[in-house]
Amino acid sequence: MNYTQEEKEAFMREALREAERALKNDEIPIGCVIVKDGKIIGRGHNAREELERAVMHAEIMAIEAANAHENSWRLLDTTLFVTIEPCVMCSGAIGLARIPQVVYGAKNQKFGAAGSLYDILTDERLNHRVAVETGILEEECAKIMQDFFRNRRKKK
Amino acid sequence: MNYTQEEKEAFMREALREAERALKNDEIPIGCVIVKDGKIIGRGHNAREELERAVMHAEIMAIEAANAHENSWRLLDTTLFVTIEPCVMCSGAIGLARIPQVVYGAKNQKFGAAGSLYDILTDERLNHRVAVETGILEEECAKIMQDFFRNRRKKK
Repeated sequence: MNYTQEEKEAFMREALREAERALKNDEIPIGCVIVKDGKIIGRGHNAREELERAVMHAEIMAIEAANAHENSWRLLDTTLFVTIEPCVMCSGAIGLARIPQVVYGAKNQKFGAAGSLYDILTDERLNHRVAVETGILEEECAKIMQDFFRNRRKKK
Repeated sequence: MNYTQEEKEAFMREALREAERALKNDEIPIGCVIVKDGKIIGRGHNAREELERAVMHAEIMAIEAANAHENSWRLLDTTLFVTIEPCVMCSGAIGLARIPQVVYGAKNQKFGAAGSLYDILTDERLNHRVAVETGILEEECAKIMQDFFRNRRKKK
Protein backbone atom coordinates (compact mmCIF):
# COMPACT_ATOMS: atom_id res chain seq x y z
CA MET A 1 0.00 0.00 0.00
CA ASN A 2 1.08 3.55 -0.61
CA TYR A 3 0.68 5.51 2.58
CA THR A 4 1.18 9.28 2.76
CA GLN A 5 4.05 10.72 4.78
CA GLU A 6 1.52 11.75 7.42
CA GLU A 7 0.06 8.23 7.63
CA LYS A 8 3.53 6.69 7.85
CA GLU A 9 4.42 9.00 10.71
CA ALA A 10 1.18 8.13 12.50
CA PHE A 11 1.94 4.39 12.25
CA MET A 12 5.52 4.94 13.35
CA ARG A 13 4.18 6.83 16.35
CA GLU A 14 2.20 3.70 17.23
CA ALA A 15 5.41 1.68 16.92
CA LEU A 16 7.07 4.22 19.24
CA ARG A 17 4.26 3.70 21.77
CA GLU A 18 5.13 0.01 21.69
CA ALA A 19 8.82 0.88 22.22
CA GLU A 20 7.79 2.83 25.32
CA ARG A 21 6.04 -0.26 26.68
CA ALA A 22 9.36 -2.12 26.37
CA LEU A 23 11.15 0.78 28.06
CA LYS A 24 8.80 0.61 31.06
CA ASN A 25 9.92 -3.01 31.55
CA ASP A 26 13.57 -1.95 31.26
CA GLU A 27 13.89 -3.74 27.92
CA ILE A 28 15.72 -2.41 24.85
CA PRO A 29 13.02 -0.01 23.55
CA ILE A 30 12.00 -1.21 20.11
CA GLY A 31 8.39 -1.31 18.91
CA CYS A 32 6.55 -2.51 15.85
CA VAL A 33 3.10 -2.45 14.23
CA ILE A 34 1.84 -4.32 11.17
CA VAL A 35 -0.74 -2.51 9.04
CA LYS A 36 -3.20 -3.86 6.47
CA ASP A 37 -5.60 -1.62 4.53
CA GLY A 38 -4.82 1.24 6.88
CA LYS A 39 -5.59 -0.75 10.06
CA ILE A 40 -3.16 -2.15 12.63
CA ILE A 41 -3.49 -5.96 12.70
CA GLY A 42 -0.51 -6.73 14.96
CA ARG A 43 1.55 -4.89 17.56
CA GLY A 44 4.72 -5.88 19.37
CA HIS A 45 7.55 -4.70 21.57
CA ASN A 46 10.77 -6.25 22.69
CA ALA A 47 9.96 -8.56 25.62
CA ARG A 48 12.92 -10.87 25.84
CA GLU A 49 13.64 -10.30 29.52
CA GLU A 50 10.01 -9.98 30.59
CA LEU A 51 8.98 -13.27 28.96
CA GLU A 52 12.38 -15.04 29.08
CA ARG A 53 11.99 -15.85 25.40
CA ALA A 54 15.04 -15.29 23.18
CA VAL A 55 13.02 -14.73 20.01
CA MET A 56 10.56 -12.21 21.47
CA HIS A 57 11.70 -9.15 19.52
CA ALA A 58 9.14 -6.47 18.60
CA GLU A 59 8.80 -7.73 15.01
CA ILE A 60 8.28 -11.37 16.01
CA MET A 61 5.61 -10.43 18.55
CA ALA A 62 3.85 -8.31 15.91
CA ILE A 63 4.09 -11.07 13.26
CA GLU A 64 2.66 -13.62 15.70
CA ALA A 65 -0.21 -11.25 16.52
CA ALA A 66 -0.89 -10.52 12.84
CA ASN A 67 -0.79 -14.24 11.97
CA ALA A 68 -3.39 -14.85 14.69
CA HIS A 69 -5.49 -11.90 13.51
CA GLU A 70 -5.48 -13.11 9.90
CA ASN A 71 -5.55 -16.81 10.82
CA SER A 72 -2.82 -17.20 8.21
CA TRP A 73 0.96 -17.37 8.20
CA ARG A 74 0.97 -15.27 5.02
CA LEU A 75 0.86 -11.53 5.70
CA LEU A 76 0.28 -10.44 2.11
CA ASP A 77 -0.60 -6.78 1.46
CA THR A 78 0.75 -5.62 4.81
CA THR A 79 3.30 -3.01 5.85
CA LEU A 80 5.52 -3.51 8.89
CA PHE A 81 6.58 -0.38 10.77
CA VAL A 82 9.43 -0.80 13.24
CA THR A 83 11.37 1.84 15.14
CA ILE A 84 14.82 0.31 14.50
CA GLU A 85 16.32 -1.62 11.56
CA PRO A 86 15.48 -5.34 11.94
CA CYS A 87 18.16 -7.85 13.04
CA VAL A 88 19.06 -11.03 11.13
CA MET A 89 16.35 -13.13 12.81
CA CYS A 90 13.61 -10.57 12.28
CA SER A 91 14.62 -9.85 8.67
CA GLY A 92 14.39 -13.59 7.98
CA ALA A 93 11.00 -13.75 9.70
CA ILE A 94 9.67 -10.79 7.65
CA GLY A 95 10.53 -12.66 4.44
CA LEU A 96 9.07 -15.93 5.71
CA ALA A 97 5.81 -14.15 6.58
CA ARG A 98 5.73 -12.73 3.02
CA ILE A 99 5.46 -9.16 4.27
CA PRO A 100 5.95 -7.02 1.14
CA GLN A 101 6.84 -3.66 2.69
CA VAL A 102 8.95 -2.56 5.66
CA VAL A 103 9.34 0.96 7.03
CA TYR A 104 11.88 1.50 9.78
CA GLY A 105 12.86 4.57 11.74
CA ALA A 106 16.58 4.47 12.51
CA LYS A 107 19.45 2.28 11.36
CA ASN A 108 21.16 -0.25 13.61
CA GLN A 109 24.79 -0.09 12.49
CA LYS A 110 25.81 -2.87 14.85
CA PHE A 111 23.18 -5.55 14.22
CA GLY A 112 20.92 -4.34 11.39
CA ALA A 113 20.24 -6.82 8.60
CA ALA A 114 18.15 -4.56 6.35
CA GLY A 115 21.05 -2.59 4.89
CA SER A 116 23.72 -2.33 7.61
CA LEU A 117 25.45 -5.68 8.33
CA TYR A 118 23.37 -7.60 5.82
CA ASP A 119 20.71 -6.80 3.29
CA ILE A 120 18.46 -9.80 3.79
CA LEU A 121 15.22 -8.12 2.71
CA THR A 122 16.40 -7.37 -0.82
CA ASP A 123 18.55 -10.48 -1.39
CA GLU A 124 17.56 -11.75 -4.83
CA ARG A 125 18.56 -15.32 -3.94
CA LEU A 126 15.79 -15.59 -1.36
CA ASN A 127 12.32 -16.22 -2.72
CA HIS A 128 10.70 -13.15 -1.26
CA ARG A 129 11.82 -9.56 -1.68
CA VAL A 130 10.71 -6.66 0.45
CA ALA A 131 10.42 -2.95 -0.35
CA VAL A 132 12.30 -1.07 2.37
CA GLU A 133 11.96 2.57 3.41
CA THR A 134 13.82 4.22 6.24
CA GLY A 135 14.09 7.56 8.02
CA ILE A 136 10.48 7.97 9.23
CA LEU A 137 10.67 9.67 12.67
CA GLU A 138 14.32 8.66 12.64
CA GLU A 139 15.43 11.03 15.39
CA GLU A 140 12.75 9.97 17.86
CA CYS A 141 13.32 6.28 17.14
CA ALA A 142 17.08 6.67 17.65
CA LYS A 143 16.75 8.91 20.72
CA ILE A 144 14.72 6.47 22.84
CA MET A 145 17.46 3.86 22.21
CA GLN A 146 20.33 6.26 22.96
CA ASP A 147 18.68 7.37 26.21
CA PHE A 148 18.13 3.74 27.23
CA PHE A 149 21.76 2.75 26.71
CA ARG A 150 23.06 5.95 28.32
CA ASN A 151 20.97 5.26 31.44
CA ARG A 152 22.09 1.65 31.50
CA ARG A 153 25.74 2.66 31.41
CA LYS A 154 25.11 5.13 34.26
CA LYS A 155 23.53 2.42 36.42
CA LYS A 156 26.54 0.14 36.01
CA MET B 1 29.64 -30.30 25.46
CA ASN B 2 31.63 -32.91 23.62
CA TYR B 3 29.31 -35.72 22.61
CA THR B 4 30.54 -38.95 21.03
CA GLN B 5 29.62 -39.80 17.45
CA GLU B 6 27.14 -42.35 18.81
CA GLU B 7 25.49 -39.78 21.09
CA LYS B 8 25.29 -37.25 18.27
CA GLU B 9 23.59 -39.79 16.04
CA ALA B 10 21.13 -40.67 18.82
CA PHE B 11 20.17 -37.00 19.25
CA MET B 12 19.88 -36.52 15.49
CA ARG B 13 17.57 -39.53 15.42
CA GLU B 14 15.35 -37.69 17.90
CA ALA B 15 15.43 -34.66 15.57
CA LEU B 16 14.43 -37.00 12.72
CA ARG B 17 11.49 -38.23 14.81
CA GLU B 18 10.38 -34.62 15.06
CA ALA B 19 10.77 -34.24 11.28
CA GLU B 20 8.42 -37.21 10.88
CA ARG B 21 5.83 -35.44 13.02
CA ALA B 22 5.95 -32.53 10.55
CA LEU B 23 5.69 -34.97 7.65
CA LYS B 24 2.50 -36.48 9.09
CA ASN B 25 0.96 -32.99 8.94
CA ASP B 26 2.16 -32.57 5.35
CA GLU B 27 4.67 -29.94 6.44
CA ILE B 28 8.25 -29.62 5.16
CA PRO B 29 9.87 -32.34 7.32
CA ILE B 30 12.48 -30.66 9.49
CA GLY B 31 13.01 -31.51 13.15
CA CYS B 32 15.11 -30.22 16.01
CA VAL B 33 16.11 -31.04 19.58
CA ILE B 34 18.09 -28.95 22.07
CA VAL B 35 20.28 -30.86 24.50
CA LYS B 36 21.81 -29.82 27.81
CA ASP B 37 24.03 -32.10 29.92
CA GLY B 38 22.97 -35.04 27.75
CA LYS B 39 19.24 -34.42 28.21
CA ILE B 40 16.73 -33.05 25.70
CA ILE B 41 15.28 -29.79 27.07
CA GLY B 42 13.39 -28.69 23.94
CA ARG B 43 11.93 -30.34 20.85
CA GLY B 44 10.41 -28.86 17.72
CA HIS B 45 9.21 -29.52 14.21
CA ASN B 46 8.13 -27.32 11.37
CA ALA B 47 4.48 -26.38 12.02
CA ARG B 48 3.93 -23.33 9.87
CA GLU B 49 0.83 -24.63 8.09
CA GLU B 50 -0.60 -26.48 11.09
CA LEU B 51 -0.40 -23.46 13.39
CA GLU B 52 -0.61 -20.72 10.70
CA ARG B 53 2.44 -19.11 12.24
CA ALA B 54 5.15 -17.90 9.85
CA VAL B 55 7.96 -18.21 12.38
CA MET B 56 7.13 -21.73 13.56
CA HIS B 57 10.18 -23.52 12.17
CA ALA B 58 11.59 -26.55 14.01
CA GLU B 59 14.40 -24.55 15.61
CA ILE B 60 12.11 -21.74 16.85
CA MET B 61 9.69 -24.25 18.40
CA ALA B 62 12.62 -26.02 20.12
CA ILE B 63 14.14 -22.72 21.35
CA GLU B 64 10.75 -21.63 22.76
CA ALA B 65 10.39 -25.00 24.53
CA ALA B 66 13.94 -24.85 25.90
CA ASN B 67 13.45 -21.23 27.09
CA ALA B 68 10.32 -22.39 28.95
CA HIS B 69 12.14 -25.44 30.38
CA GLU B 70 15.05 -23.32 31.65
CA ASN B 71 12.87 -20.32 32.49
CA SER B 72 15.57 -18.27 30.77
CA TRP B 73 16.10 -16.77 27.33
CA ARG B 74 19.78 -17.76 27.57
CA LEU B 75 20.46 -21.31 26.44
CA LEU B 76 24.07 -21.48 27.59
CA ASP B 77 25.82 -24.87 27.56
CA THR B 78 23.35 -26.38 25.10
CA THR B 79 23.69 -28.11 21.74
CA LEU B 80 21.04 -27.72 19.05
CA PHE B 81 20.57 -30.68 16.69
CA VAL B 82 18.57 -30.00 13.53
CA THR B 83 18.04 -32.22 10.50
CA ILE B 84 18.62 -29.45 7.91
CA GLU B 85 20.88 -26.38 7.84
CA PRO B 86 19.11 -23.46 9.56
CA CYS B 87 17.63 -20.60 7.51
CA VAL B 88 18.40 -16.90 8.08
CA MET B 89 15.70 -16.44 10.73
CA CYS B 90 16.67 -19.56 12.69
CA SER B 91 20.40 -18.82 12.49
CA GLY B 92 19.67 -15.37 13.91
CA ALA B 93 17.53 -16.91 16.66
CA ILE B 94 20.26 -19.42 17.59
CA GLY B 95 22.68 -16.55 18.14
CA LEU B 96 20.14 -14.50 20.09
CA ALA B 97 19.48 -17.50 22.38
CA ARG B 98 23.25 -17.77 22.98
CA ILE B 99 23.31 -21.43 21.90
CA PRO B 100 27.02 -22.26 21.65
CA GLN B 101 26.91 -25.40 19.49
CA VAL B 102 24.87 -26.47 16.45
CA VAL B 103 24.91 -29.86 14.73
CA TYR B 104 22.94 -30.22 11.52
CA GLY B 105 22.36 -33.18 9.23
CA ALA B 106 22.18 -31.99 5.63
CA LYS B 107 22.93 -28.72 3.89
CA ASN B 108 20.23 -26.48 2.44
CA GLN B 109 21.87 -25.02 -0.65
CA LYS B 110 18.87 -22.84 -1.41
CA PHE B 111 18.10 -21.19 1.92
CA GLY B 112 20.80 -22.30 4.39
CA ALA B 113 22.39 -19.53 6.46
CA ALA B 114 24.95 -21.65 8.34
CA GLY B 115 27.44 -21.97 5.48
CA SER B 116 25.42 -22.04 2.24
CA LEU B 117 23.84 -18.63 1.39
CA TYR B 118 25.16 -16.95 4.51
CA ASP B 119 27.38 -17.88 7.40
CA ILE B 120 25.51 -16.14 10.20
CA LEU B 121 26.61 -18.48 12.99
CA THR B 122 30.31 -17.73 12.61
CA ASP B 123 30.06 -14.03 11.64
CA GLU B 124 32.65 -12.27 13.83
CA ARG B 125 30.71 -8.98 13.65
CA LEU B 126 27.81 -10.45 15.64
CA ASN B 127 28.31 -10.71 19.37
CA HIS B 128 27.81 -14.46 19.62
CA ARG B 129 29.62 -17.14 17.67
CA VAL B 130 28.52 -20.73 17.34
CA ALA B 131 30.53 -23.91 16.75
CA VAL B 132 28.96 -25.69 13.79
CA GLU B 133 29.22 -29.35 12.81
CA THR B 134 27.47 -30.97 9.89
CA GLY B 135 27.05 -34.35 8.23
CA ILE B 136 25.52 -36.34 11.13
CA LEU B 137 22.97 -38.78 9.57
CA GLU B 138 23.21 -36.57 6.50
CA GLU B 139 21.65 -39.07 4.08
CA GLU B 140 18.59 -39.75 6.22
CA CYS B 141 18.06 -36.06 6.93
CA ALA B 142 18.28 -35.21 3.21
CA LYS B 143 16.18 -38.19 2.08
CA ILE B 144 13.06 -37.33 4.11
CA MET B 145 13.16 -33.86 2.48
CA GLN B 146 13.74 -35.18 -1.05
CA ASP B 147 10.87 -37.68 -0.68
CA PHE B 148 8.56 -34.93 0.57
CA PHE B 149 9.26 -32.60 -2.36
CA ARG B 150 9.08 -35.45 -4.88
CA ASN B 151 5.63 -36.44 -3.57
CA ARG B 152 4.49 -32.84 -3.58
CA ARG B 153 5.48 -32.39 -7.23
CA LYS B 154 3.63 -35.62 -8.10
CA LYS B 155 0.46 -34.38 -6.43
CA LYS B 156 0.49 -31.15 -8.46
